[in-house]
Amino acid sequence: MRKKTELFKKAGVRNVCPRPSERPIGVFDSGLGGLTVFRELRAQLPGENLVYFGDTARVPYGTKSAEAVRAFSLEITAFLLKKKVKLLVVACNTASSLALDQIRELSPVPVLGVILPGVEAALAAAPAGGKVLVTGTSATVNSRAYSRALAATGARVRVLEKACPLFVPIVEEGWCDRPVAEAVAREYLLPFRKKKVDALILGCTHYPLLKKIIARVMGPRVRIVDSAHAAAARARLDLAERGLLNSGRLGWSQFIVSDAPERFSALAMKLLGIKTGKVSVKRF
Amino acid sequence: MRKKTELFKKAGVRNVCPRPSERPIGVFDSGLGGLTVFRELRAQLPGENLVYFGDTARVPYGTKSAEAVRAFSLEITAFLLKKKVKLLVVACNTASSLALDQIRELSPVPVLGVILPGVEAALAAAPAGGKVLVTGTSATVNSRAYSRALAATGARVRVLEKACPLFVPIVEEGWCDRPVAEAVAREYLLPFRKKKVDALILGCTHYPLLKKIIARVMGPRVRIVDSAHAAAARARLDLAERGLLNSGRLGWSQFIVSDAPERFSALAMKLLGIKTGKVSVKRF
Repeated sequence: MRKKTELFKKAGVRNVCPRPSERPIGVFDSGLGGLTVFRELRAQLPGENLVYFGDTARVPYGTKSAEAVRAFSLEITAFLLKKKVKLLVVACNTASSLALDQIRELSPVPVLGVILPGVEAALAAAPAGGKVLVTGTSATVNSRAYSRALAATGARVRVLEKACPLFVPIVEEGWCDRPVAEAVAREYLLPFRKKKVDALILGCTHYPLLKKIIARVMGPRVRIVDSAHAAAARARLDLAERGLLNSGRLGWSQFIVSDAPERFSALAMKLLGIKTGKVSVKRF
Repeated sequence: MRKKTELFKKAGVRNVCPRPSERPIGVFDSGLGGLTVFRELRAQLPGENLVYFGDTARVPYGTKSAEAVRAFSLEITAFLLKKKVKLLVVACNTASSLALDQIRELSPVPVLGVILPGVEAALAAAPAGGKVLVTGTSATVNSRAYSRALAATGARVRVLEKACPLFVPIVEEGWCDRPVAEAVAREYLLPFRKKKVDALILGCTHYPLLKKIIARVMGPRVRIVDSAHAAAARARLDLAERGLLNSGRLGWSQFIVSDAPERFSALAMKLLGIKTGKVSVKRF
């Protein structure tokens, strides 16, 4: 493709539109947590161009009303559609829980949330008749989106749910390896270890960064399901099915936030080792 | 006054404006933390009418840019001024740190933040040459508003600062009395106990709810200064000086938020035992 474009250029032919496969994937989240999804997309789809939007002016979504989360999500969707994305990944669990239908109504390109990929991975990990524990923000858990999605598959599993609101600030504090992180995880999760859970869904984008500690608290019997990993794998399949995979060597990345770009950039490096380069700001 | 109004009514005289002292005090915060200031105002000024605004659609302010915090604060100020308030109390430490000058430019009525009252109380608690530790959100600490205000008084104290971002979600989780709250407090504060601090300023509206635990971690030598208490005392003085105290028996309270009124109402009861009654919603 690059060669072809170059030939066109040499021949004076203006390349008005990039080939569909070269259009970027749009990823959005309430803040920087969605970078765990970005990281998985980058790892599993190295050739793709990625535009990441973090709504840092209104983060977190987890304590906001469904109405507010929907309004915010639609604003961001309209913004990313202008970037000519070929696929929209809603990395935020809260927005995936509360706003996916509305986003799909607005979007002419496919929209992928993190709930269904997480559910599929959990069902692959738990035996028939087993128990799945869903962890997430208060809004995600209260929305019962994972429970409903699990029930909709018709699979015979029992679903338990637990909101863990302190996990996000612990991650953002950079305390993932400190004893206090484990103390908080025990406060939330020990009662469920006793209930002999088979799989635990990390139903918030920040939680993969606490995966080790959560696994230690839950014990070796419990499979930890990472929605970010599952969503990236699903994005790969979707693009392949539509013939939209970008097989380029190394795609570009662009980062846009609604507030405090320096903080975003610093935390992306501190927590995930991601070098964002210059982060743009789009205020709503 | 009530009797006089009734006499006017009976005589067919229309009471176009309430007497200046009967106008409400406007209080605002990024969310529900400012209810600790509301609680102090209600206790110290039982006759006052109080209008409380919590910006729950955009909470927390602590991780937002100064620009965003200023824009939000000015929107809320304009809204409260329409309610004919006689005094504006900026209960939010972040907004007090970053936006007080701008709010004062916009407001024809006096504006009171929580920083200066906290500073005055700390200076009363620490000896000359002593050490004051300021705790608060990242934004408040990074703004160095308390340090600058302490320095501006010319008092000979040494100021130390520590951001404690997990305190807010711990309070909102209702974990103030659990061991994990003390573990988090020790993580943040033990190094300062060793530094022989004389006074600690609770520089965030949520922190008074962790006062006991913070006092225990810091030890009996350290005076804990509650900015909410100090701000209400200062409001009382200001109103008295201007002849604007409402000496009525029991003032009314009104609560308005920008999102999720039921959650606000439930947490007001759970955390502070405040019965809000119906909470209105004003979206920006």
